[in-house]
Amino acid sequence: LGEFEKIADIYRLARQIPSSRAVRLGIGDDCCLLTVPEGEELALSTDTVVEEIHFRLSYFDHYQVGAKAMLAALSDLAAMAASPVGALATVSIKEEKNIDELARGLIDAGAKYGCPLIGGDLTSSTGPLVVTVTVAGLVKSGSAVLRSTARPGDRIWVTGAPGDAAAVLACLEEEMKSEKRGLTLPDESLKKKFYEPVPRLAEARALIVSGPPTAMIDISDGLAADLGHILESSGAGARLFAESFPLSSFSSQVAIALGFRAEHFFLHGGEDYELLFTVPPGVIEKEVSRLEKETSTTFTLIGEINEDSGKITIMRPDGSIEPITGSGFDHFTH
Amino acid sequence: LGEFEKIADIYRLARQIPSSRAVRLGIGDDCCLLTVPEGEELALSTDTVVEEIHFRLSYFDHYQVGAKAMLAALSDLAAMAASPVGALATVSIKEEKNIDELARGLIDAGAKYGCPLIGGDLTSSTGPLVVTVTVAGLVKSGSAVLRSTARPGDRIWVTGAPGDAAAVLACLEEEMKSEKRGLTLPDESLKKKFYEPVPRLAEARALIVSGPPTAMIDISDGLAADLGHILESSGAGARLFAESFPLSSFSSQVAIALGFRAEHFFLHGGEDYELLFTVPPGVIEKEVSRLEKETSTTFTLIGEINEDSGKITIMRPDGSIEPITGSGFDHFTH
Repeated sequence: LGEFEKIADIYRLARQIPSSRAVRLGIGDDCCLLTVPEGEELALSTDTVVEEIHFRLSYFDHYQVGAKAMLAALSDLAAMAASPVGALATVSIKEEKNIDELARGLIDAGAKYGCPLIGGDLTSSTGPLVVTVTVAGLVKSGSAVLRSTARPGDRIWVTGAPGDAAAVLACLEEEMKSEKRGLTLPDESLKKKFYEPVPRLAEARALIVSGPPTAMIDISDGLAADLGHILESSGAGARLFAESFPLSSFSSQVAIALGFRAEHFFLHGGEDYELLFTVPPGVIEKEVSRLEKETSTTFTLIGEINEDSGKITIMRPDGSIEPITGSGFDHFTH
Repeated sequence: LGEFEKIADIYRLARQIPSSRAVRLGIGDDCCLLTVPEGEELALSTDTVVEEIHFRLSYFDHYQVGAKAMLAALSDLAAMAASPVGALATVSIKEEKNIDELARGLIDAGAKYGCPLIGGDLTSSTGPLVVTVTVAGLVKSGSAVLRSTARPGDRIWVTGAPGDAAAVLACLEEEMKSEKRGLTLPDESLKKKFYEPVPRLAEARALIVSGPPTAMIDISDGLAADLGHILESSGAGARLFAESFPLSSFSSQVAIALGFRAEHFFLHGGEDYELLFTVPPGVIEKEVSRLEKETSTTFTLIGEINEDSGKITIMRPDGSIEPITGSGFDHFTH
C-alpha cells in the first residue's frame, strides 16, 4: 500500500465517526469547512509530540501515541472553555506499518469528545515519529477564558490531583533504567492518567455556568510553570498554601522515593491536563459540591493572586514563606 | 535562552504583523479566537514539511524553510477560493539557534498574504526538522470550490506553467551529486518559483467572480496526480491535449537533459502550487484576457473532463491517444 491508499483508509475510518454540527465539509478536500453559528467564536490550538522528547515507543504503542496527542490538544480547548468541533492531524513517520494504529488512536480519542478528524497530512520521515494535532472548538462570543485576566485577590483553584501523570512517567523511566529504587509500580488506573488523560472539557463548561473563572490554563508543563504563564500574562503574582495541596499518595510516594519533596510532582510534573483557574473570592466556594457531583472531579482552592508581579511563593503550615520558581520542562535548556 | 524566552521572541515578532479582521485573539494563549462573519465559512488546512523528505538544509536556509512551509499551506486556501485570516505553526528542531530565522520566514511569508501567525508550538527533537503549518481562511458560505464536483464536459484549465519548481529541484539534486549532465542551472527568477512559490489566492478570488470553477485543486503532488484527486473525488475521467500544454523552456530542457519527455515536469513535477480547475465550456474563455491582466498570471485550457472514470488520457498532436498514470510523489512507495 502506498501513501494515497493509506490516506483513503484513514478517510474511511474518520468518516465512521459522527460529524459535529459545525462541520460543513470534513476530511478529504484541500480544506475542511466549518460553520460558526452567530454569537459564537472559533478557538484554535495546535500541539506537537515528538518521539524521544514527549514519549518513547518502548512504553507507548502507536495507538496510545495517537490518543494522547489528541487528548493533549483537546485540553487546550478546555482551558478556554471551548467545545470541540473537529481536529486536523499531521503524522511524520518512518514506517507505514503503524499508521493505521496511530490513526485509530487519534480518531477514537477524538470521537469520545465529539471531535471528528476533519483534515490532516501524512508524510514519511527519516527520524523520530512526530504527530501534530490542531483542534477547533466553539465558544460563546466573549465567554472564552484567557490567561491574561487574573486579578489580585482572585482565588486559585485546581481540578483533580496533579502529579500522578509525571509520577507514572518517572516510574516508567526508572523501570527502563532497571534502577527501581524501591518504587511501587503504578496500577492500571494510575497508568491511565498518564496514557489517557481526560481533557477537562465538562469541568470547564460547568465552571463558566456557575461563575466564570477570571483566568484559566491547562496543566501541561507543571502547575508552577503554568501558573507562571497566567501570572506573566496577567502581570500578577501568587501565593500558594501548601497545606491545601491535593497531593495524591502515589505521586508523594514516588517523589519521596526519588529524593524530592512530596509536593514535587504536584508542582512541577507536566501532562496531567488538569485545569488551573482563578476566580474572585466567594464565587465558587458555594458551588463546589454541586460542581464536584456534576463532573465527578474534585475542585481545590490552593492559593491566591497578589500584586507580587511574576513571583510565586508558598506558605508552609508553620507560617513560613518561601519562593518557588516556575520551572517546567524547557525544551532547550534541560 | 530557553524555550519560554524563544517563544516570547516569536510572540513579539508575530505581533508586529497587522492582525486580520477575523482575529479576536492572536498568539500567546491556550487558543487563538476567530470571529466568522455571518454568511461566511471557515476553511482549515494543515501541511507538514520534513527535512530530507521535502527539503535539504544543504540548499535551504531556515528562513526559506519557514517561508515555503507557510506558502504551501496558504496554497490550500487558494484551492478552495478562501482568503487567509491566520496560521498556526509547529516546529520540532534539534538546535535552538535557527529558531528565530525559521520563525521570521514563516511570519514574513504569512504577512505578505494577510495571514498573521496566531498560534503554534515549539519543541526540541533528536531528528530532522519538521514544520507543520495550519491555515485558517474565510470564504462566502457555499462558495468554496471542492474537488468532488467536476462534471463530464467541463474544461480543464491551469494557471501559469507548472514544472519549473520540480525542474529547479532536479537541478539542485544533480548539482549535489556533481553530475550536472549538461544542465543549465536555473537563474534567480526560476529558483524563486521553487523557494518562494506564489499561492494563487488572487487568481482563485478572480475566478469565483468571473464564473466559478466546478472543481479546483492546487498542484502540490504534480498535475497528473492532483488531477487524479479531482477525478477520484468526482467519479470522472479526463482527456488532456498535449499541444496545448504551457511548457516552459526551462522545465522542458531539464526534462530532456535528464532523459525524460519535455512534458515530464509539467505533468509529474510537484510544488508549483499552480491551480488546476474545471469549468463548463464557454464560461472562462471570454474572460481570459481580463483575468490574465488582473492577476498577471496565464490561464490555459489543457483538456476536458469525461466519463472515463479515474482514467487520464493524452491526445497527441498527431491524433493518437495514450493513457497516463496519475503518479505523483508517494511517501511510502518511492
